[in-house]
Amino acid sequence: MLNGNQTWIFSNKPTIISTGVVGGPFEKAGKIKADFDYFFDDQWCNETSFEKAHTALIEKASDFAVSKASIAHSDINFFLHGDLINQITPSSFAAKKLNIPYLGLFSACATSMEGLAIGAMLINSESANYVMTGAASHNSAVEKQFRYPTEYGSQKPNTSQWTATGAGLAILSKNGKGPKITSATIGKVIDYDLHDPFHMGAAMAPAAADTISTHLKERNIKPSDYDLIITGDLAYYGRELCLSLLEEMNISIPQEKFLDCGLELYSSSQPTMAGGSGSACSALVTYGHFINKIKNKELNKILVVATGALLSPLTVQQKQSIPCIAHAVSIENGEV
Amino acid sequence: MLNGNQTWIFSNKPTIISTGVVGGPFEKAGKIKADFDYFFDDQWCNETSFEKAHTALIEKASDFAVSKASIAHSDINFFLHGDLINQITPSSFAAKKLNIPYLGLFSACATSMEGLAIGAMLINSESANYVMTGAASHNSAVEKQFRYPTEYGSQKPNTSQWTATGAGLAILSKNGKGPKITSATIGKVIDYDLHDPFHMGAAMAPAAADTISTHLKERNIKPSDYDLIITGDLAYYGRELCLSLLEEMNISIPQEKFLDCGLELYSSSQPTMAGGSGSACSALVTYGHFINKIKNKELNKILVVATGALLSPLTVQQKQSIPCIAHAVSIENGEV
Repeated sequence: MLNGNQTWIFSNKPTIISTGVVGGPFEKAGKIKADFDYFFDDQWCNETSFEKAHTALIEKASDFAVSKASIAHSDINFFLHGDLINQITPSSFAAKKLNIPYLGLFSACATSMEGLAIGAMLINSESANYVMTGAASHNSAVEKQFRYPTEYGSQKPNTSQWTATGAGLAILSKNGKGPKITSATIGKVIDYDLHDPFHMGAAMAPAAADTISTHLKERNIKPSDYDLIITGDLAYYGRELCLSLLEEMNISIPQEKFLDCGLELYSSSQPTMAGGSGSACSALVTYGHFINKIKNKELNKILVVATGALLSPLTVQQKQSIPCIAHAVSIENGEV
Repeated sequence: MLNGNQTWIFSNKPTIISTGVVGGPFEKAGKIKADFDYFFDDQWCNETSFEKAHTALIEKASDFAVSKASIAHSDINFFLHGDLINQITPSSFAAKKLNIPYLGLFSACATSMEGLAIGAMLINSESANYVMTGAASHNSAVEKQFRYPTEYGSQKPNTSQWTATGAGLAILSKNGKGPKITSATIGKVIDYDLHDPFHMGAAMAPAAADTISTHLKERNIKPSDYDLIITGDLAYYGRELCLSLLEEMNISIPQEKFLDCGLELYSSSQPTMAGGSGSACSALVTYGHFINKIKNKELNKILVVATGALLSPLTVQQKQSIPCIAHAVSIENGEV
């Protein structure tokens, strides 16, 4: 099942039998609102702290995913999840409520595809009947932890990004109807010695380019074998840089075939600077928007390359560079 | 390969072909110093911050594991690792240096067995030729992050524990000589509504009891099928509580067959209060001490049940309870 050094081929083609996609009011005003199952009316999600609201997002997404899968909650063997909050407590508190055996993950904003890759591997190897996996983030909880208190009203440069509030989950099974997961490439940590935490698209672009080029090489395929190659949250500047880096590697992808979840989530009138980000970003856009496009046959084959900046406020204070990672998963229309 | 709802049986018996076990000066003064590969002379590990020292511990353990395995560094397909520091940055910075495709994990002090379970699954399903996995912690980095500044000299109750400084790694392969990984049980998050972050043994004991009872039931075996059942870092009080909880479940384990890594790492003369803890604790004691005992045939079959408290300073400040988890992995002498 290992193909090359860091790519898995899933011969049993694990199936995404359902998804749960939940956001907040800012996401409701975004570009793909029709692809969500539910929006909370405010950032508090009926809770008393932003972190508890973060947990509520995950629980609500789980409710939708389980109910749409027409399985019992107890049928799910494993819950693979992560987020950006210290010690991923929103994920762990959700796992407690869900009462499903739990594997906590952290790849920053690449967590969605780390979970989908490992989850598909569990299904493919008959190590699970059903897996629920995904990622979440909460704008206010993340701003509070990583940046200045929002009350300061400090300005941000154009290269900064807007952390999504939401949770995107997928339930995987060996059988059933739905898009098939066909392969995954686990990324290496790539670090071009960039130090600006307000320009994470630039820091993450080389990791995305490395994983994409490795994936194509280890599968011996061309970019044109996919309808779309979709990065996680490189946003405007990072996406441009990634395309340039791929060109330097002699990998040519047409502009219209190379999308970024950070540019699909919000509308251009929203003040998101370079675009969306956060662990939820690639989960929401993949499990909402693109899975729907595969289901209604607008798309046949996509490669989702979630990107993560593995920094912390402390590593920035200690003047360390920003190590980054990208994990890629290919999803196909099983009926073609 | 799924056996029951949350247990994996590894029919290909992934092998621990080598380990790397590194500590600091406090560990050098401990009970199992002969089981370490290397000790740094101080908490700084030749670095300029405790967090960079934390990364250095992982890199040094990797050097030993790779060299003892007699493989090339580039033969290793995946590095599965985690720690307690926010955004697990010490693990990610080590992954960058190691240049091995990386899956970041977080189960607090249960991370060692989360990694060993997933790693064994990757080997068992032929998704990897070689996997390196483990966990690390650094006393000073953790104290700084989770507790009062050490300069305050604040006193701690007897129920508190001493976070280990060290990194314990194992390299897994499908072939080769060494102890075999035969099964794993992934734990649920268990929460008895305890709130005292200075008594994590009590908070974690129910999670350990739940995972042990589930493991025995899903494998249809008895405690006596193992030479030892070894918890991660319940320490003195947590171990006693866990034994009582197991008795209530009609699972009887003799005192001398039920050990805890937190009670094996340090000598009784060291001021560790209830015992050792930290993500490194179960990794150091398992990959050092107990793997050696399996290799020299003092032990044939053990079950390691790493335990994690999934709290953060913020969840404590917000007066939330302490959700806990335990993951169990069985290791056997392959030659018996």
